[in-house]
Amino acid sequence: MTIRIGLIGAGRIGASHARIIARRVPEATLVAVADPRPGVAATLAEPLGARGQTDVEALLGADDIDAVVIAASSTAHAELIVSAAEAGQHVFCEKPAGMSLEEIDRGIAATAKAGVVLQVGFNRRFAADFRAAHEAIGGGRIGAVRQLRSVTRDPGSGPSDPDAVPPWTIFTQTLIHDFDTLNWLNPGARALDVVVTAGSLTAPGHPTLLDHATVVIRYDNGAIATAEASFAAAYGYDVRGEVLGSGGMVTAGDGASTSMRLHDATGRIAATAHGDVELMVDAYTGELTEFAMAVRDRRAPSVTGQDARAAFAIAQACIESYESGARAQVAS
Amino acid sequence: MTIRIGLIGAGRIGASHARIIARRVPEATLVAVADPRPGVAATLAEPLGARGQTDVEALLGADDIDAVVIAASSTAHAELIVSAAEAGQHVFCEKPAGMSLEEIDRGIAATAKAGVVLQVGFNRRFAADFRAAHEAIGGGRIGAVRQLRSVTRDPGSGPSDPDAVPPWTIFTQTLIHDFDTLNWLNPGARALDVVVTAGSLTAPGHPTLLDHATVVIRYDNGAIATAEASFAAAYGYDVRGEVLGSGGMVTAGDGASTSMRLHDATGRIAATAHGDVELMVDAYTGELTEFAMAVRDRRAPSVTGQDARAAFAIAQACIESYESGARAQVAS
Amino acid sequence: MTIRIGLIGAGRIGASHARIIARRVPEATLVAVADPRPGVAATLAEPLGARGQTDVEALLGADDIDAVVIAASSTAHAELIVSAAEAGQHVFCEKPAGMSLEEIDRGIAATAKAGVVLQVGFNRRFAADFRAAHEAIGGGRIGAVRQLRSVTRDPGSGPSDPDAVPPWTIFTQTLIHDFDTLNWLNPGARALDVVVTAGSLTAPGHPTLLDHATVVIRYDNGAIATAEASFAAAYGYDVRGEVLGSGGMVTAGDGASTSMRLHDATGRIAATAHGDVELMVDAYTGELTEFAMAVRDRRAPSVTGQDARAAFAIAQACIESYESGARAQVAS
Amino acid sequence: MTIRIGLIGAGRIGASHARIIARRVPEATLVAVADPRPGVAATLAEPLGARGQTDVEALLGADDIDAVVIAASSTAHAELIVSAAEAGQHVFCEKPAGMSLEEIDRGIAATAKAGVVLQVGFNRRFAADFRAAHEAIGGGRIGAVRQLRSVTRDPGSGPSDPDAVPPWTIFTQTLIHDFDTLNWLNPGARALDVVVTAGSLTAPGHPTLLDHATVVIRYDNGAIATAEASFAAAYGYDVRGEVLGSGGMVTAGDGASTSMRLHDATGRIAATAHGDVELMVDAYTGELTEFAMAVRDRRAPSVTGQDARAAFAIAQACIESYESGARAQVAS
Repeated sequence: MTIRIGLIGAGRIGASHARIIARRVPEATLVAVADPRPGVAATLAEPLGARGQTDVEALLGADDIDAVVIAASSTAHAELIVSAAEAGQHVFCEKPAGMSLEEIDRGIAATAKAGVVLQVGFNRRFAADFRAAHEAIGGGRIGAVRQLRSVTRDPGSGPSDPDAVPPWTIFTQTLIHDFDTLNWLNPGARALDVVVTAGSLTAPGHPTLLDHATVVIRYDNGAIATAEASFAAAYGYDVRGEVLGSGGMVTAGDGASTSMRLHDATGRIAATAHGDVELMVDAYTGELTEFAMAVRDRRAPSVTGQDARAAFAIAQACIESYESGARAQVAS
Repeated sequence: MTIRIGLIGAGRIGASHARIIARRVPEATLVAVADPRPGVAATLAEPLGARGQTDVEALLGADDIDAVVIAASSTAHAELIVSAAEAGQHVFCEKPAGMSLEEIDRGIAATAKAGVVLQVGFNRRFAADFRAAHEAIGGGRIGAVRQLRSVTRDPGSGPSDPDAVPPWTIFTQTLIHDFDTLNWLNPGARALDVVVTAGSLTAPGHPTLLDHATVVIRYDNGAIATAEASFAAAYGYDVRGEVLGSGGMVTAGDGASTSMRLHDATGRIAATAHGDVELMVDAYTGELTEFAMAVRDRRAPSVTGQDARAAFAIAQACIESYESGARAQVAS
Repeated sequence: MTIRIGLIGAGRIGASHARIIARRVPEATLVAVADPRPGVAATLAEPLGARGQTDVEALLGADDIDAVVIAASSTAHAELIVSAAEAGQHVFCEKPAGMSLEEIDRGIAATAKAGVVLQVGFNRRFAADFRAAHEAIGGGRIGAVRQLRSVTRDPGSGPSDPDAVPPWTIFTQTLIHDFDTLNWLNPGARALDVVVTAGSLTAPGHPTLLDHATVVIRYDNGAIATAEASFAAAYGYDVRGEVLGSGGMVTAGDGASTSMRLHDATGRIAATAHGDVELMVDAYTGELTEFAMAVRDRRAPSVTGQDARAAFAIAQACIESYESGARAQVAS
Repeated sequence: MTIRIGLIGAGRIGASHARIIARRVPEATLVAVADPRPGVAATLAEPLGARGQTDVEALLGADDIDAVVIAASSTAHAELIVSAAEAGQHVFCEKPAGMSLEEIDRGIAATAKAGVVLQVGFNRRFAADFRAAHEAIGGGRIGAVRQLRSVTRDPGSGPSDPDAVPPWTIFTQTLIHDFDTLNWLNPGARALDVVVTAGSLTAPGHPTLLDHATVVIRYDNGAIATAEASFAAAYGYDVRGEVLGSGGMVTAGDGASTSMRLHDATGRIAATAHGDVELMVDAYTGELTEFAMAVRDRRAPSVTGQDARAAFAIAQACIESYESGARAQVAS
């Protein structure tokens, strides 16, 4: 028996999830895709053997759908989680799981009450190198965690329409991956406070666009973490992590698209990956497989609503720190 | 419509193929597994939703099977190819496609006559790094090919039962991958002759066991290639390639299992892959997907019986060179 | 004609400088070593063909000494610079060039008045990889500088006697290298303010010992830099830099002691360098050669007192930020 | 007391040796350079504080010269070794130490009779990574040696004047480095026979120019070694080694000129070294320091005439193998 999945949102990441569910997750079947834009869902769904529909509501509670994968606009995430849970459907939701801690708490409560799975899309936990780093740390290979770094850089030269980027995107959409990664690589520790240094460097005329940010997080075990993001990496999509412990260091992340190296008059060249889908396809497959298996086995997934809440609390503190210019407490 | 596949041979590589077809190749359905050893096929097949059977003959020509994947003993390959073709089934066969050029020719002829696809298991062509190397060469990035190297080393300390290793295994089973890789990375060129230096180093008392071999191949475009194999790499499974051209060099292959690095008092450590299935899972998926698509689209696969023949001709010349101690011509 | 050098301070770094001057800088001759501890200077100097003496004063202004290399205690640096300058001797001084901006200014003024060279020991500028990074940035290869990182980690498990470490050592002795590196890799920009997160992690009972620190610096060109230090890297001495620009990124630093790789059952292992002298010998040679050549050619060295001042101003702001917990301005 | 050195031959490698002796080997003093071409020696020698002369004979036996460094034409090496020895001077000679085993034997005999040091210029033994590989092997880290590879590729697109390249240059001048390296990395073993595959690929109209060669050597401990050379590596000077043992593998050689990496739209780029002097300067310094110390300490150097003989014996067998097309015995 496979898990019958309905996908909400046929944008870039939704399309990637649809193809991965249909092609690479035998534990799941893609049944339907819903997107309010006329024709968009059908164009994606039909070649994958699923139906497309514009009516998102009709998907929530549909008889032939066990679980929904939410890849809609972030502002809709919390409401969709609650509605799906109330309809008895399991939920995989892209990050963030809501636009406030209150929203996220509502989703956690609704899914808990309904007894359904809630998993959030922190895909980096399923990337082989980050996973190996996590295991090395858990296995005591580097001792006590002391100093961490997590980096996310989007490829290109910055947003094509800076005005279209919602105000705190760099914290709530981009660095939220790093916040979860840092929490996960510092097991058992809790973030205390943050201090943000950020700026609008690709589009100086757009002061509300933060396109580069460096966040320092202090944890209750004394560890000091740095999270760095940029919306403009000319050399490709760059996701890296580094953890120094009392007994050693682990590093993860390598932007090379394959281990092929071209040597010519320029030097030795490694081609770099230019997209998250390209670099992260195995991680996406891993998280969606994990979701299907958690649903199938009626167990908690390895990434929970609480994880989403903890990462969002850091993002929220970042907004406060940026606005005040001072250190800000992370809500517990 | 998916391609309905019957697998012959539930050994190590057969089991890997079965799981990959069932889980990672949506273009194909694993319908049945046949293995003459009682219960072996069923144990593998049933959890994958397929039937297991001891009767291999019954699979050849079964109504519900479009194509067979042959992972049986090498000595049976040619006969199985011919039988499947005569039954109108498409064929994916593990290397070698036969134990002599005559056997391989019979398979090629039978599949051609039946109008069915014949693809041979040269998985390295589907490994991302080797593929990128091939594309760089084809795209003229290194100019004219001049000097090549291909290496295959099996993990461990050598065969546990040296007497059980068939005489020319290192040429016909191991280096045959390298011979195909070298042919493929030297596009349009033909191997002229070989000279072999080989020995029994892990089990000196077993002179017929060749466990280390270095083969130099001369091509008709002047290129000089080296193929090296060992059955005893203590550090893991090692597959690498290197091509020097008039304008540069490409290299492929990196034995690290992930890009995670552990730094401790020992130094900076990359864990290494210890098995072909671990290192090559994407390549196996790629070749089986290619096969399913070639069958579906009624087209020639990208690895053909002629490729199998060309690689085997080099293996055969290696046997002759080893026996004579001299250079041996490659049959055309 | 070679520059006749007197070295002050025969500690670890002084001994290294003595050997490098004597063996690897043909433009200079080591004439004398002075260290107030009985016998210490002689033990170092004599095998190198120089004289050892306990009287530091006698070295300042000695007829046979053109230039002094100051590797004494940091608290003595400023006074020694002034005295040497007044005696007409050129000065190479280990960092920091003083314990306050006022001290550094006095050294700058005294050397300027005397018309002698003042160079400060920012050796990283002479490391081949950092130098190549600097040149790539200067050559416009990565466009406008936006986000930087510089890391220094000392090998081992932390100070053996935490009480013996002067209070702000991590800023004034260790990170000062990173501050200079960041200034140098962000050409023409000026540091505006800093925010420090730091702690005592190796010796929790010693709150005044800061052994891990992460500093974020904001520059007037909008660039955001992170400087990280640790006194306890179990895997060796670790010096790295990274600069993201609008057109690409440069990275420098690789802790491997050679390009030899050992592959065994543990994996693929790169031995790591465990000391600054080991990792930085070419950089030390480079800076001392530069000094001798600047003296010989009567020109300004490539690392000046102003550079020392700019780096120290950041260190000073770090102390203020650590004490207040808030962002602190960098004095101009 | 330093060793007073006279250099014979002011060509490319002679000039490099002169500068290294003068600047980086404090145990030695460059006293004179001799080159029969008018003015060439003086131009090199004078800025280094040495005298230049056209009379090579006058250098042999000069009162103020303890040792000669021979970087003259290969055909003159043996005669110069004998003459210097007869004049009581110690000898460092570039490879090869003669153009036949007989010539080399005469040099060995003359230096032995005179009781002077004879060291041959196998610089790779002093490269840090090869040295670390040698030590790992000697320390038992990879067990028994089984399969080796050594590569030398000269940068560029091949000889500008193919007719000017002496017939067997690739064996006697280039691969002789690899032969020595392989002997040294397979301690205690003796080369038995070789088989050569070689061709003229950069200048097909010049059949006597061998510009690419792959040599397989069989050792008396069963080990199988490959030595590969090319005169035309578009990507730079490439020197690498690899040794597989029963317990692991060591690799050495990395063509990157520094550890700086530039990441741009092309990918991640490591600049490559384009010359032996650039890549090998520390190795040259090491071998010349070793020579000066061996002379000073009246001891055998770590690279001897016997090593030169053993490597030349392989080169000689290569010529025979190339001419016959068959395997050739290595003279003992």
